[in-house]
Amino acid sequence: MDEKNDKPLILEDFLPYRLAILSHTVSSLIARVYDKRFGLTIPEWRVIAIVGRFPGLSAVEVAERTMLDKVAVSRAVTKLIKAGRIDREFADADRRRSILTLSEDGRKVHDEVAPLALAMEEDLLHGLADEEIATLNTVIERLLVRARLISSP
Amino acid sequence: MDEKNDKPLILEDFLPYRLAILSHTVSSLIARVYDKRFGLTIPEWRVIAIVGRFPGLSAVEVAERTMLDKVAVSRAVTKLIKAGRIDREFADADRRRSILTLSEDGRKVHDEVAPLALAMEEDLLHGLADEEIATLNTVIERLLVRARLISSP
Repeated sequence: MDEKNDKPLILEDFLPYRLAILSHTVSSLIARVYDKRFGLTIPEWRVIAIVGRFPGLSAVEVAERTMLDKVAVSRAVTKLIKAGRIDREFADADRRRSILTLSEDGRKVHDEVAPLALAMEEDLLHGLADEEIATLNTVIERLLVRARLISSP
Repeated sequence: MDEKNDKPLILEDFLPYRLAILSHTVSSLIARVYDKRFGLTIPEWRVIAIVGRFPGLSAVEVAERTMLDKVAVSRAVTKLIKAGRIDREFADADRRRSILTLSEDGRKVHDEVAPLALAMEEDLLHGLADEEIATLNTVIERLLVRARLISSP
């Protein structure tokens, strides 16, 4: 067997898996903030954060930007609408396209969680040198560009 | 209002969200490899990769390590068992603890996807300097340690 092809997949050293673990761990950390205070799940908060940041997106566009499982996001949107935190308006008569916005209550949740989330980010980055943070941001950007380049037809 | 607390949450600059986008984009890139060849979804491949790397874990432990939505993982495990790619054995008489292992067919899928996944990782890292990759790995590790420190009681 070719030695090159013989390299085993050591999952814990595999960058895509390491990124998944890190992303999930960090998201779970931030979740402690809004779960305790508002009983929100990760998909629910992510929907609120996206609708708060990018008002006027369609439900489909919001779901895409959550980067989470579609079924889980759909459940989250339904729950947020029922709870009066998200408003849904239909953009055309045949109801094919719906636009999501934060309700007054949803805006309150957003504006209360946002500074706590930012404080948690700061706490997380504590101990990293400025140049390490800068390299991290550059590398994330370049990996994204590279991934999109590879995946484009 | 205090200026410090007034900093808005710019989602696209927020590290937890950037990590989620990167992790999802990279996982989707790898997914092209096994979706095309074997029709596997991201949760299905992740279950195969974890069971292949850590045989003898319980179904619950496998699900935890996928870092994905529990319902999505449960669906994936059921589908893989039905497709004969994963074997489930019950560890005790009352069937409370089940152990997952790769079937012969599952092992074949794993061993065929693994080198393609590793090649995709290499392609993804193409263009990054060795020291950038080293910093990335160090920072991932330190962020994980920090996140676990913050979240420990």
